[in-house]
Amino acid sequence: MEVDGGLDVTYLNKYCNSSSSSSSSSEQDRKIFMKLKLNLSGDYPRKNAEFLSGQYGINLFLIGVAVMLAVAGDKPSVEESHLLAFVTCLMVLQLIWMMWYILLRERRKNTRTERDVNATTSWIRGALTVLAVLSLVMDSFRIGYFVGFSSCLSAVYAVYPVVHATHTIAQVHFLWFHIKDVVKSLETFERFGVIHAVFTNVLLWCNGVMSEAEHFMNNHVRRLSSLDSENITIVSSEPECNSSTTSSTSSLFSRGLVYLFPFNIEYHIFVSVLLFVMWKNIGRTISSNKKSLVTKTQGLTLGPILGLLTLASTIAVLVVYITRIEGVLEMRQSAVSMFYIYGIVMLAVMCFSCASGLLIYRADHMPLDTSKNTSRQLDTELLFGSSLGSWFLSWCSVVAVLCTDSKVSYRWTNLVYSIFIVLEKYLQNLFIIESLYRKQERVERSDPELPAVSEIFSVTSSMAPPFSGIINRAYETPDKTPEMEQEEGREMYRCEEQPEEPLNMKRLILKNIAVFLIMCNISLWLLPAFGCRPQYDNGLEQDIYGFSAWTTVLNFAIPLNLFYRMHSVASLFEVFRRV
Amino acid sequence: MEVDGGLDVTYLNKYCNSSSSSSSSSEQDRKIFMKLKLNLSGDYPRKNAEFLSGQYGINLFLIGVAVMLAVAGDKPSVEESHLLAFVTCLMVLQLIWMMWYILLRERRKNTRTERDVNATTSWIRGALTVLAVLSLVMDSFRIGYFVGFSSCLSAVYAVYPVVHATHTIAQVHFLWFHIKDVVKSLETFERFGVIHAVFTNVLLWCNGVMSEAEHFMNNHVRRLSSLDSENITIVSSEPECNSSTTSSTSSLFSRGLVYLFPFNIEYHIFVSVLLFVMWKNIGRTISSNKKSLVTKTQGLTLGPILGLLTLASTIAVLVVYITRIEGVLEMRQSAVSMFYIYGIVMLAVMCFSCASGLLIYRADHMPLDTSKNTSRQLDTELLFGSSLGSWFLSWCSVVAVLCTDSKVSYRWTNLVYSIFIVLEKYLQNLFIIESLYRKQERVERSDPELPAVSEIFSVTSSMAPPFSGIINRAYETPDKTPEMEQEEGREMYRCEEQPEEPLNMKRLILKNIAVFLIMCNISLWLLPAFGCRPQYDNGLEQDIYGFSAWTTVLNFAIPLNLFYRMHSVASLFEVFRRV
Repeated sequence: MEVDGGLDVTYLNKYCNSSSSSSSSSEQDRKIFMKLKLNLSGDYPRKNAEFLSGQYGINLFLIGVAVMLAVAGDKPSVEESHLLAFVTCLMVLQLIWMMWYILLRERRKNTRTERDVNATTSWIRGALTVLAVLSLVMDSFRIGYFVGFSSCLSAVYAVYPVVHATHTIAQVHFLWFHIKDVVKSLETFERFGVIHAVFTNVLLWCNGVMSEAEHFMNNHVRRLSSLDSENITIVSSEPECNSSTTSSTSSLFSRGLVYLFPFNIEYHIFVSVLLFVMWKNIGRTISSNKKSLVTKTQGLTLGPILGLLTLASTIAVLVVYITRIEGVLEMRQSAVSMFYIYGIVMLAVMCFSCASGLLIYRADHMPLDTSKNTSRQLDTELLFGSSLGSWFLSWCSVVAVLCTDSKVSYRWTNLVYSIFIVLEKYLQNLFIIESLYRKQERVERSDPELPAVSEIFSVTSSMAPPFSGIINRAYETPDKTPEMEQEEGREMYRCEEQPEEPLNMKRLILKNIAVFLIMCNISLWLLPAFGCRPQYDNGLEQDIYGFSAWTTVLNFAIPLNLFYRMHSVASLFEVFRRV
Repeated sequence: MEVDGGLDVTYLNKYCNSSSSSSSSSEQDRKIFMKLKLNLSGDYPRKNAEFLSGQYGINLFLIGVAVMLAVAGDKPSVEESHLLAFVTCLMVLQLIWMMWYILLRERRKNTRTERDVNATTSWIRGALTVLAVLSLVMDSFRIGYFVGFSSCLSAVYAVYPVVHATHTIAQVHFLWFHIKDVVKSLETFERFGVIHAVFTNVLLWCNGVMSEAEHFMNNHVRRLSSLDSENITIVSSEPECNSSTTSSTSSLFSRGLVYLFPFNIEYHIFVSVLLFVMWKNIGRTISSNKKSLVTKTQGLTLGPILGLLTLASTIAVLVVYITRIEGVLEMRQSAVSMFYIYGIVMLAVMCFSCASGLLIYRADHMPLDTSKNTSRQLDTELLFGSSLGSWFLSWCSVVAVLCTDSKVSYRWTNLVYSIFIVLEKYLQNLFIIESLYRKQERVERSDPELPAVSEIFSVTSSMAPPFSGIINRAYETPDKTPEMEQEEGREMYRCEEQPEEPLNMKRLILKNIAVFLIMCNISLWLLPAFGCRPQYDNGLEQDIYGFSAWTTVLNFAIPLNLFYRMHSVASLFEVFRRV
């Protein structure tokens, strides 16, 4: 209705009037043709334009994945340079579109562009800029690597980092100045542009994940072959090259790349989520209610202290793990054991925190905020969906431990660790969801500067209804304003104003829990992101599922788990502000 | 609000009153404890109960998949009997829950149970009953197979079919008499029961898919080894057994099973979708607007005739393909070529039909029905999501064809066929989505007996808002009744009553297109469901991606594609009724 309704009715009336006055069939044919032409060029229905561009984006992605699969094969007939050439083409296309978009906006500077104030926060943009800078460092390393091996590398290995660097700079500029735009002209075309940008970033993410997985696999295979004397051929990550002069610097670049991968990966997945929000916003009408958030930090002691302790010990465990895992068999086994024991302790404390939070909610009963809020729903769905990877890993481990004949020391700690991983995600998801869905009257009254429904932090927060593309006037609830609902809430919970003290105590506990969980989730991101992946090193699951099946599972589940940890940090930060 | 609001307020008031009158801290402690106990036992918030049970269901599913992965390994340390035992346990649990549920409903016969009239149609229940009967035949074959090999098979191979048969009978009874129930008592417990039933069926579906894939793989490997003299060991599907007397009948049973697999697989996936609707309905308030649908069939000629022709020729192609694929290399290649050429012709006609339908919509412009209808949204999302499998297959084929050195005759027909598959799904999805989202005023006036928004056919049709679990009073739009909206529509399109003839012509064309597409989609379900899978037989993709990677892709994508075809038949049937 909203998008093309206005045009429609006037147009249709015009058509109807003219068709009733003229009755000759050739005239009518001409008119139908004209009408067809007009409709094809101009106002394509919004819902269909969404699917039209969405299907284009998905197919782009699937082509990329198909090429990656061909590259990753045992005896690849498709080379990595082909893949890089394909991705480079996509980036160039995106660059052209962004340039065109920016120029168009420059030219129309006078007409006010509608903006979605909730689309990002300066916090997120700052974090993305840092990640982008690290990506630029990575690109410079790539160029350095190419210079070292230039005699025997395809030219695409030089073109790719240059285009990627340009792409990164242009994209950061776009994120700073245009990501909040609500596109209202040339909607169907812009939809294609934005979804192209989304899936280009998703493919770059996939490419990063693949490179990282390959690197891990090579390390893993090297370790296996050197220690257990299994006869698996080592695939060298460096090209066979005659030039001996440059190899030392280039190897340095190649080693440096490894530590920059995790940041580049997170950069691309975050950008694609932001661009997806922009895509969803195209053609929407945004109600501009600017909210300001103030985060209160008083009374926070135990949570941050415990959290920082966890973070510090995690970094220690990470360093010990990485150094010991390169050693002899006993050292490796002790490293794995250490990891599991450390994990069990941390996860147990996290489970306990989440359970306490949930118990506090049960004791302090309050109806859920049942108002329609699609952003929140998307957040919880992403949380739920990205848990699947890690849950699947854990259950595979449980099945493997129960079936194996191996007598390694960490067999049962692995079982306990896996069950704790499942339990921790189960409880943490429940805790986050309940926190996000609870009504907030109480907070409002004690902190009048806090907004009622503060969703600003969430990267997906701008997807307020009508997020689904179906615009429904009924959402606006003309007979029940927010003020009236607040009134109702105040009536229902007036009595709670009396016991002020215990409520604040509860809020303080919840805030501490949230901070602690944020630190723990950062720790659990750090460990796998920088190479602490006992699933590769313990050998239990690999025995049961076979090398190729198990590494496939890991290559699918670990990136999903990394995304889960990042996303839960963002969600927990919102929880921290709301409670 | 809706679910636990009533209880809350009265309870809370009581608590507040008592807490303000008594000030001793031990008294208050006791009260908090009581309150906690009450909250834990009774009115768990609805949103959280959904996630609580949803997470349970997903984890159940993941355990099952982990066990399956272990069974499917190269040197399985987990045997198939373990998997069957696990699934049998789940079925027994579901049986106990269903029995308990039915008995409870029997005892409370006097209190009226709310029912969701849109949950299923008699058409769907009838189809499911037929599928269930075929599943029972399959179980009897399984029992016969066990009797033949009883001396060397684990007892679980007898227990499994008996439990499965009992489960099927009980479940069909449940579907007939209770699937429309809207549960209002013991909600959290019932949620666990229903989600357990959903994922038990999903696991049975996975198990069926795995058995079928295994059977295909065995056939495929046998063919490869007999023809191309590759040295792959043949895995016999029959156990090594000393008893020679019974093997002939048992082999007959085992061969018969193969033809019953596709029906059993469709049965389980459909039941799980229906149960999922029931799960979503728990605790909802259903507005009871009984609709009756009348399907008009006058003026349908070209669509059904072309469709039946397609169906008949498909069956012919299927039979020829299956017989020739067992022959020598030339015969196999000619069978694959024949399949691709036939596919290209059929898909080209389908693309043309869809494009014509879309052009008719463009010429006959009408705003989309932007009212909130989550059922429709879920339908389109399922359509979109299940397209992914087949799109991915096609793009893999395209990449393989472009990279291969092979000179087989069907190299380029494979490319054209793959691109047509992508294009056909692209256009068909757009056509279905536009058909479901268009306003229907016109239809109403010419066929007053047709309802305005007829979603009855769709299996997910009962998920009207508040499907998402967030109950929003605003949905009910008190200031704008459906009648008023119809009035608006009538005003806007009054002029269209004059050119009655061309509109009816358009509707007729659209109806014919829908019928034709239904038949084509049934054909495209039949071909892979009964063994026509050239992706296994053409060898092109296998060369590029390697045997294991490519069969993994196929095992994931083909079941998804089968579901897509079934679901698009259901959606197109709805389109047929709406246009």
